[in-house]
Amino acid sequence: MTTTQGRKLRAGIVGGGRGAFIGAVHRIAAEIDGEAELVAGALSADPATARANAAAWYLPRSYDSFADMARLEAARPDCIDFVIVATPNHLHAPVARAFLSAGIHVICDKPLAFSLEEAEELAGVAAREPALFALTHNYSGYPMVREARSRVRSGAIGVLRKVMVEYNQDWLMEPLDKSGHKQAEWRTDPKRAGISCCVGDIGTHAAHLLELIGGRRIESVCADLTSFVAGRALEDDANMLLRLEGGAKGTLVCSQVACGEENNLSIRLYGSAGALEWRQQEPNTLIAKPPGGAPWQLVRTGRSGLGADAAAATRTPAGHPEGYLEAFGNVYRAFIGDIRRLAEGAAPARDYPSAADGVRGLRFVAAAVRSSSRGAMWEPV
Amino acid sequence: MTTTQGRKLRAGIVGGGRGAFIGAVHRIAAEIDGEAELVAGALSADPATARANAAAWYLPRSYDSFADMARLEAARPDCIDFVIVATPNHLHAPVARAFLSAGIHVICDKPLAFSLEEAEELAGVAAREPALFALTHNYSGYPMVREARSRVRSGAIGVLRKVMVEYNQDWLMEPLDKSGHKQAEWRTDPKRAGISCCVGDIGTHAAHLLELIGGRRIESVCADLTSFVAGRALEDDANMLLRLEGGAKGTLVCSQVACGEENNLSIRLYGSAGALEWRQQEPNTLIAKPPGGAPWQLVRTGRSGLGADAAAATRTPAGHPEGYLEAFGNVYRAFIGDIRRLAEGAAPARDYPSAADGVRGLRFVAAAVRSSSRGAMWEPV
Amino acid sequence: MTTTQGRKLRAGIVGGGRGAFIGAVHRIAAEIDGEAELVAGALSADPATARANAAAWYLPRSYDSFADMARLEAARPDCIDFVIVATPNHLHAPVARAFLSAGIHVICDKPLAFSLEEAEELAGVAAREPALFALTHNYSGYPMVREARSRVRSGAIGVLRKVMVEYNQDWLMEPLDKSGHKQAEWRTDPKRAGISCCVGDIGTHAAHLLELIGGRRIESVCADLTSFVAGRALEDDANMLLRLEGGAKGTLVCSQVACGEENNLSIRLYGSAGALEWRQQEPNTLIAKPPGGAPWQLVRTGRSGLGADAAAATRTPAGHPEGYLEAFGNVYRAFIGDIRRLAEGAAPARDYPSAADGVRGLRFVAAAVRSSSRGAMWEPV
Amino acid sequence: MTTTQGRKLRAGIVGGGRGAFIGAVHRIAAEIDGEAELVAGALSADPATARANAAAWYLPRSYDSFADMARLEAARPDCIDFVIVATPNHLHAPVARAFLSAGIHVICDKPLAFSLEEAEELAGVAAREPALFALTHNYSGYPMVREARSRVRSGAIGVLRKVMVEYNQDWLMEPLDKSGHKQAEWRTDPKRAGISCCVGDIGTHAAHLLELIGGRRIESVCADLTSFVAGRALEDDANMLLRLEGGAKGTLVCSQVACGEENNLSIRLYGSAGALEWRQQEPNTLIAKPPGGAPWQLVRTGRSGLGADAAAATRTPAGHPEGYLEAFGNVYRAFIGDIRRLAEGAAPARDYPSAADGVRGLRFVAAAVRSSSRGAMWEPV
Repeated sequence: MTTTQGRKLRAGIVGGGRGAFIGAVHRIAAEIDGEAELVAGALSADPATARANAAAWYLPRSYDSFADMARLEAARPDCIDFVIVATPNHLHAPVARAFLSAGIHVICDKPLAFSLEEAEELAGVAAREPALFALTHNYSGYPMVREARSRVRSGAIGVLRKVMVEYNQDWLMEPLDKSGHKQAEWRTDPKRAGISCCVGDIGTHAAHLLELIGGRRIESVCADLTSFVAGRALEDDANMLLRLEGGAKGTLVCSQVACGEENNLSIRLYGSAGALEWRQQEPNTLIAKPPGGAPWQLVRTGRSGLGADAAAATRTPAGHPEGYLEAFGNVYRAFIGDIRRLAEGAAPARDYPSAADGVRGLRFVAAAVRSSSRGAMWEPV
Repeated sequence: MTTTQGRKLRAGIVGGGRGAFIGAVHRIAAEIDGEAELVAGALSADPATARANAAAWYLPRSYDSFADMARLEAARPDCIDFVIVATPNHLHAPVARAFLSAGIHVICDKPLAFSLEEAEELAGVAAREPALFALTHNYSGYPMVREARSRVRSGAIGVLRKVMVEYNQDWLMEPLDKSGHKQAEWRTDPKRAGISCCVGDIGTHAAHLLELIGGRRIESVCADLTSFVAGRALEDDANMLLRLEGGAKGTLVCSQVACGEENNLSIRLYGSAGALEWRQQEPNTLIAKPPGGAPWQLVRTGRSGLGADAAAATRTPAGHPEGYLEAFGNVYRAFIGDIRRLAEGAAPARDYPSAADGVRGLRFVAAAVRSSSRGAMWEPV
Repeated sequence: MTTTQGRKLRAGIVGGGRGAFIGAVHRIAAEIDGEAELVAGALSADPATARANAAAWYLPRSYDSFADMARLEAARPDCIDFVIVATPNHLHAPVARAFLSAGIHVICDKPLAFSLEEAEELAGVAAREPALFALTHNYSGYPMVREARSRVRSGAIGVLRKVMVEYNQDWLMEPLDKSGHKQAEWRTDPKRAGISCCVGDIGTHAAHLLELIGGRRIESVCADLTSFVAGRALEDDANMLLRLEGGAKGTLVCSQVACGEENNLSIRLYGSAGALEWRQQEPNTLIAKPPGGAPWQLVRTGRSGLGADAAAATRTPAGHPEGYLEAFGNVYRAFIGDIRRLAEGAAPARDYPSAADGVRGLRFVAAAVRSSSRGAMWEPV
Repeated sequence: MTTTQGRKLRAGIVGGGRGAFIGAVHRIAAEIDGEAELVAGALSADPATARANAAAWYLPRSYDSFADMARLEAARPDCIDFVIVATPNHLHAPVARAFLSAGIHVICDKPLAFSLEEAEELAGVAAREPALFALTHNYSGYPMVREARSRVRSGAIGVLRKVMVEYNQDWLMEPLDKSGHKQAEWRTDPKRAGISCCVGDIGTHAAHLLELIGGRRIESVCADLTSFVAGRALEDDANMLLRLEGGAKGTLVCSQVACGEENNLSIRLYGSAGALEWRQQEPNTLIAKPPGGAPWQLVRTGRSGLGADAAAATRTPAGHPEGYLEAFGNVYRAFIGDIRRLAEGAAPARDYPSAADGVRGLRFVAAAVRSSSRGAMWEPV
């Protein structure tokens, strides 16, 4: 691959054009460190819209299709270094495949693919191709998530015993899907969202965060999925019991009908020698709970006593709150770092969610759906 | 029964002598409103200890056994109006029966009895005898719990959809039961505690609170019980899925090994038109979560806009925190009110936990234990 | 004095009858530990009301006047051991004097007296008479206030540099005093409340708490007092700069027109080696802020690592919230302990606010009023 | 001026090179919306360092001095559209003047200048020149600050009565300035920082925020400034009484020695009909406190019921925390919007802090220093 020294990386994006919340998030996250710049896009299936979107973002190169884009970019001397996949779920795999095959690094929104089968196939491609692949399980990017992971790894909480993880929202508590709300429509439509709405969309974030911080895999799940809003084909709520490798147990709760909840992803891990709690809506605080009745500690982004991982994910001094976009940007930071390493012949560090994590997420969804359909029987993940 | 006008009620207590945390709690709760006074006790199986305990509390009348106490008190013209049962669990039923049979009102610590069978039998006695019976599910006494119940009853949150209730502690995270800690010893000993430790001791409080506020019964439970501390015969941790009458679903989590947790009883109820959240450790705040993305409201003890139930359970102006003892005292307040009503020929209001609630609690324990032993199968409560 | 062994102390009360919030608070606080019992009262200037109030509290002895009560009780063999003074401010001194002179211990609501002159005179009486005197600066009774005091004394925060103390309420933000609200009427009436409303009523609590925990006296004050509600004769709001012995500086803010505030007494103390923060509305948490960017610690009532003072002021295990009444009861606990000590010939411990503290409170009020009237000039306290 | 349609704006930066926290913040804030791109810089007084810094940021154009940069850029057809001034304080005015005179828009870090005199002179230049000028009082950019301002403007809290604003940090609590810490050295050196350290650096942010939200000017200040750390020439702590136009009163407290505080900028405004509270470290929540004892409301970024100003300053859905960089970016967003408006011949909206605000900040500092030096006398601002 060509050198990346002395210049910003060139990025392309497929999907996520103007009006799509997640497209703008990817753009900011990719560019926030000044290490990459969007220069190309396939921003709609409709050519005119694609061009208008590209112009709105001042992109010099606009393509009518992702296939064209992969092919034509690969042929340019100033080819994009990586592509962002921000399309609806069912296009993740074909788009990612096209760019990987063209030798272009890929960073892809989650879920990895539309179905478990497709995900496994894509993971195979990602493993075979020399190009890098990252999945934006963005919550992994928060400094205090990194700190929690470090602490668990270092044994600070002893043997993991009990976990409680939740991801509750309320945006689907009314039948928006019946009143023309685009996001709500496709999220609740099995043809476009796959076998699951709530677990697939947000439950997988919770599961990923749990395994990432806890350092233990979910072995099996006992799930009770519900569609509370009349006429909705996919579940909008789930309650699960979990069993993890190493003997830990716990619950995973997610909902899109939990009135009053915005984006409440929260996790608690209780071990034999300590506990940790983190809440995404107050992301700069990690609560450390020591044993023996000692006082809780409010561990804070940017303050002293943090590990190298947290420090490396922080942009401002303590008390200058960092948020969602910065955390998302940390996934990009690690991915871009790897692209530069690879270009210089060094080994990538791979400290970001992978295609294998994506497969794991879809296995989790499949296990939860299967468990629930059997009346909440334990199912292996 | 004799009139109670113009005087404090006379109370007796069985068990809970000096050194027992719960005995002092009952004494304070019984006397806090100046409507009753402890005058008699059977405060130990050992007569000398019993007398010393009685003297320490300045009780004029000390008995060597609860049987003597029931018999001799019933024969006095200044007989106690009610007895407090604060013994270990296995004595609740025999003591309560003795006093009910002697025509003396009984207020009994939870659980109602040692086993479900014994509980059902005692409930039968309580139903037959004219004397009143109350069970001290004390968390029901908090003003904000009353307010939450009122709001759910009035339809403020619409149809109940989702519940999350937890009761986490850490006091058994080390093997105290092996090192001479009395409480820890009997709580984890099947001979004295019955079939369950954690669910029986605290899970039942959570279940009662849920049914009280939610106004819906738990229909079935899918439970995963664990004993995390090596060598412990009974579970110290439980994760459960719940299904409630009317279609609501949820989780109930309780633990005595959740490092860093003091007495974290918390509940969330999500309905089709609103949600409520309450945390026992900050008991004077009820969080009301309206639909439509409107701001959360911090509903506070003693402030405006509260229902009559909350107001009736409040002793001080807003901002003067009320706590555990005051809430416990509210169960006594309602019970004492009923004794006075009955003495004047009026109908009791029965706004406190009953023997039937106690039976229900033991059914819940039995269902959870059964479910877990079958590998987390749904069991009816 | 007669022995107090083997019996509850006998208490009397002057003022604070039915309907007066503070009377019931004193009754509960006096009796909560089961170490004292109210048996006598002069509960109104109107004899019929006095009798009705006494009957409502089941008091065996009712008096028509405090003078009668002091004289007649002193003559009884079962004389009250102490009297509670819960009258309006202008009667504190005469009532306290009458009982002290009769050899009866006195526990008196704050402020000590109507004016600084009267307070100084009463403090002289209290110093001369053998009977004990306590002033109910009740916020001093919270376990976490005791813990904070211990920590400052032990040097845990180093040299005190900066303090921020506030006591904000909103109950006078409308002209209640013009619409028949009794409390509001006398509080804002110079004839009954003296030279100050807000500073005298709540600012003194804040000042006392600061000196108690900080262990340093307020040397001088620069105050800006305001009456925000039209037509109000006394101030309902105050902002002050403080200078303390030893070089610390800070602010004291109090208000009765701070919309939305219930009873927000909060204090922060910053030293050269640490800081502490406590908020009365969440009284079971003391925030310890270490130097060097280390995490804040949430020090909690009843947990490990607390000093003897906090432990001695705690009735329940951690996580069972204690509140205002328990804290108030701790002032009584210390006072009653001293009565028993004195009765047995031991030296009193005097760990409760004294008449000298009361004089100091009135000096603080006088200094604040003087400073403000001179346009916020520094005035010594 | 040339059109800006269809392209990103070109930005230059003076000062704030590699290693300077604030330079990176400006870069991110300028570029976060994809509406501008840094292309030129004068990033050090040392040419080699300047070039290295420019290369590290991939800037195509590096200058050895700001004077060169202003002159040479102005001569280019692809001249920068605006310059960012991120130098030490004493260079703000000369740099800003150079670019304004060259017809290039300027966005300048606060304070406006080294001294009040210099600030007034610069404000005159800014008023005369056609180029736009913005001052980065960045805390004004938070959505909930905008919402608070809207609510006060609309009368939601009635007549402003009482304010409490604070800005506390602890980074100077040890004598860093004596141990080679660059930032600490110049901040506490009168030759480089001017007449004030703490008030100038952070107190002015607090004062600006208060006037911005409150909509009322600070009329006079009574200040007590202290240097707690031995040997420090400028104050590291300040306590102030404030009087505002319209009769409101309050306190402003700031400190750099408040142990345990990170960047605690907080504000409360109490009016005759409501109150508001905002805390920079939890920036996505605005607490609205209604009158009449009604529940507090937690108003949240991105949720319903917000005004247009807050909505326009928000990039992500509710529950996806936005922080310091996004808020900083909102000042840039408004400034860039005005540059585009002006380029198209429209009137600028000027909804960002101005040179006049900067003059006001330095007047506030001067008044505080004067007041303190006279022993805390009231001084007009």
